[in-house]
Amino acid sequence: MSGKNDEFADFRERMNQRILEQDNQVVKRFFSLDSQTYRDGALNVKTKEMLGLVASMVLRCDDCIRYHVNQAHAAGVTRDEFFEVFQVGLVVGGSIVIPHLRRAVDALDELEQGGAES
Amino acid sequence: MSGKNDEFADFRERMNQRILEQDNQVVKRFFSLDSQTYRDGALNVKTKEMLGLVASMVLRCDDCIRYHVNQAHAAGVTRDEFFEVFQVGLVVGGSIVIPHLRRAVDALDELEQGGAES
Amino acid sequence: MSGKNDEFADFRERMNQRILEQDNQVVKRFFSLDSQTYRDGALNVKTKEMLGLVASMVLRCDDCIRYHVNQAHAAGVTRDEFFEVFQVGLVVGGSIVIPHLRRAVDALDELEQGGAES
Amino acid sequence: MSGKNDEFADFRERMNQRILEQDNQVVKRFFSLDSQTYRDGALNVKTKEMLGLVASMVLRCDDCIRYHVNQAHAAGVTRDEFFEVFQVGLVVGGSIVIPHLRRAVDALDELEQGGAES
Amino acid sequence: MSGKNDEFADFRERMNQRILEQDNQVVKRFFSLDSQTYRDGALNVKTKEMLGLVASMVLRCDDCIRYHVNQAHAAGVTRDEFFEVFQVGLVVGGSIVIPHLRRAVDALDELEQGGAES
Amino acid sequence: MSGKNDEFADFRERMNQRILEQDNQVVKRFFSLDSQTYRDGALNVKTKEMLGLVASMVLRCDDCIRYHVNQAHAAGVTRDEFFEVFQVGLVVGGSIVIPHLRRAVDALDELEQGGAES
Repeated sequence: MSGKNDEFADFRERMNQRILEQDNQVVKRFFSLDSQTYRDGALNVKTKEMLGLVASMVLRCDDCIRYHVNQAHAAGVTRDEFFEVFQVGLVVGGSIVIPHLRRAVDALDELEQGGAES
Repeated sequence: MSGKNDEFADFRERMNQRILEQDNQVVKRFFSLDSQTYRDGALNVKTKEMLGLVASMVLRCDDCIRYHVNQAHAAGVTRDEFFEVFQVGLVVGGSIVIPHLRRAVDALDELEQGGAES
Repeated sequence: MSGKNDEFADFRERMNQRILEQDNQVVKRFFSLDSQTYRDGALNVKTKEMLGLVASMVLRCDDCIRYHVNQAHAAGVTRDEFFEVFQVGLVVGGSIVIPHLRRAVDALDELEQGGAES
Repeated sequence: MSGKNDEFADFRERMNQRILEQDNQVVKRFFSLDSQTYRDGALNVKTKEMLGLVASMVLRCDDCIRYHVNQAHAAGVTRDEFFEVFQVGLVVGGSIVIPHLRRAVDALDELEQGGAES
Repeated sequence: MSGKNDEFADFRERMNQRILEQDNQVVKRFFSLDSQTYRDGALNVKTKEMLGLVASMVLRCDDCIRYHVNQAHAAGVTRDEFFEVFQVGLVVGGSIVIPHLRRAVDALDELEQGGAES
Repeated sequence: MSGKNDEFADFRERMNQRILEQDNQVVKRFFSLDSQTYRDGALNVKTKEMLGLVASMVLRCDDCIRYHVNQAHAAGVTRDEFFEVFQVGLVVGGSIVIPHLRRAVDALDELEQGGAES
C-alpha cells in the first residue's frame, strides 16, 4: 500500500478513535451498524461492497469511494467488474461523478500496483 | 400490475416518446446509453439492477426506485435480498432515505401481490 | 389534524409496520436509532427537533419536513422560532428550498388551525 | 394555461403571501434577492432563465423546473434551445434527472399547447 | 489557533475580499444576508450556529462545517452538545457524513487544544 | 497558466487516459457524449459553458467548476458575466456554494493573471 492510502488510513483510524472515545451512544451505535451492514447475508460481502461503492460514487464522497474500493478489492472484485460498477455510477450520477471516478481509478491502480489492501 | 405502477408506466412511456421525437442527438444517445448500462457483462443483470436501485435510493429519486424495483424483481431479486439493498441505501444515505424506503416497499408489495412486473 | 396530515400519518404508519415485519436486523436497528436520536440529552427535545427540521429542509425531503414540523410544534417551537429555523435552511440551502418552505408553512398552518399534532 | 400550471401557480401564490406576511427580515430579503437575480444585467433575462433552469434540473426540483420553464418560455427560449439546456442538465446530472426531464417536457408541451405562460 | 484553521481563515478572508470588490449587488447582498442569518432573534446565536452546523454536515461542506464549529464553539457549545449535533447530522445524513464528522472532530480538537477560536 | 491549474490538468489528463484504456464501452461513450454536449448548436459554446458552470456550482464540484471556468473564459465570458453566473449559482444553491465560489474566483483570477487557459 503506497502513500495516499496510508495517509487516509492513518487519519481515518485516529479520528474514529477520537469519535468512539466520546460517550455518545447514538454515534457509537451508528458506527457499529455501519460495520454490520456489509457482512455476509442474503447478499454476499462482494455484492454489498459493490453496492456501498456505487452509492458512494453517486453521492460523490471521495473517502467513502476509497474505502469501498479497498474493501471490494479485498472481496475479489476484478478490474472489469469495478468498471461496470463505475459505469452504473457514471450513468446514474452524470458527468459530475467524473472527478470522483478519476480518484477511484487512481485508488484502484494504487492497490493493484501495491499488491495490498487495507 | 395494479394502479400506481400502471399510471407511472403510462406517463413514463408517453413522455419518453415525446423526448425521443425531438431531434436532439445528445439526449437520444444518453437514453440509449442508459439502456446499455444494465445489460449482462462482467456483472450480470441482477447485480446491475441492484446497483441501480441502491444508487436511486441514496439519490432519493422515487421514479427511479420504482423502475429499478420492477427490473430487479423481474431479474429474480428476492425479498430478503431487496431488504439488504435497502439496508445499504439506508445506512449510507441516512434517515432522509426512509420516506423513499417506504415507497420502495410499497412498490415491492404491489409487485408481489400482483404477480406481474413492467 | 386535517386531511394532508392524516393521509401522511396513515401511509407512514402502515409502511413502517411492513418494514419492521421483515427480519432485517440492520433496518430495524436503524429505525430504533432514529428514535433515540431526538430524545432529551445534552440538548433538549425542542432543540433536537429544530436540528432535524433544518437538516430535512436543506436536504429537501418533504415527508421529513412535515414530520419534524409536527414534532417541533409538539415540543413548543413557536411560529417566530419556526421562521428562524426556516431562515437558516433557506440561506444555507438556497432558493431551491423555497418549494419545500411553502409546504413547511402549509403544514404549520394546518397544525395551528387544527389545534392538534400527530 | 391548463390545469397543472394553474394549480401550481395558485399554491405558489397563496403560500408566498403567507410567508411574506410573517415578520422575518431574512426570509423577506431572500425572496427579494431571488427576484433581482434574474433581471437583465451583463447577461440578459433569457440567458439567466436558462441558467436557473439547468440549476433546477441538476438539483432535481420539479417546482423550480416548472417555474423556470414558464419564465424561459416567456423570455423567448425556443423548443430546440430548451432541449439543449436539458441536454446539459442530463449529461451533468445523469439518468437521475430523467424523471424531472419528463416533467419539464410535459410543462413545455402544456405551455406550447396553451399558448400562454404564467 | 493552529495550522489548518489559520490557512482556512486566510484563504477565506482573501477570497471574500476579491468577491466583494466586484460590483455585483446580488452577490454582495447575499453575503450580507448570510451574516444577518445567525444573529440573535427569536432563537439565540448558539442555537442558530448549531442549526448552521447540522445543515453544513448533512450537505457535507467541510469549509462550512469548520466555520460553524468555530462559531458554535465561540458561542459556548460544549463538546457533549457538539456530539449531539453530530448525532443528528449522522443519523439524518447517513454514513456518507462520517468523513466530514472526522474533520469536524479534528477542527473541534484543534480549537479545544489551542484555546482560541476565529 | 500557473500552479493549481497545471496540477489539475495533469492529473485529469493522466486519469482520463487510464479510464479510456479500459475496454468499457459505456464509460467510453459517456466521455464522448460529454464532449459533444458543449458544442455549438441551437445554443452557442459560450452559453453552454455557462450552463455547465452553473450546474457544477450548485452541485458543488470543484474540479468541474475549474474546468468550466477555463472553458468559459476561453469562449469569451467576461468577468462581469462570470459574476452573474455565480450570482445565479449562489442564490439557487445557497451559502453552501460560497466555499466553491471562492475557489471559482481564485481559478478566474489565476486565468486573468496568467493570460492563458487550458
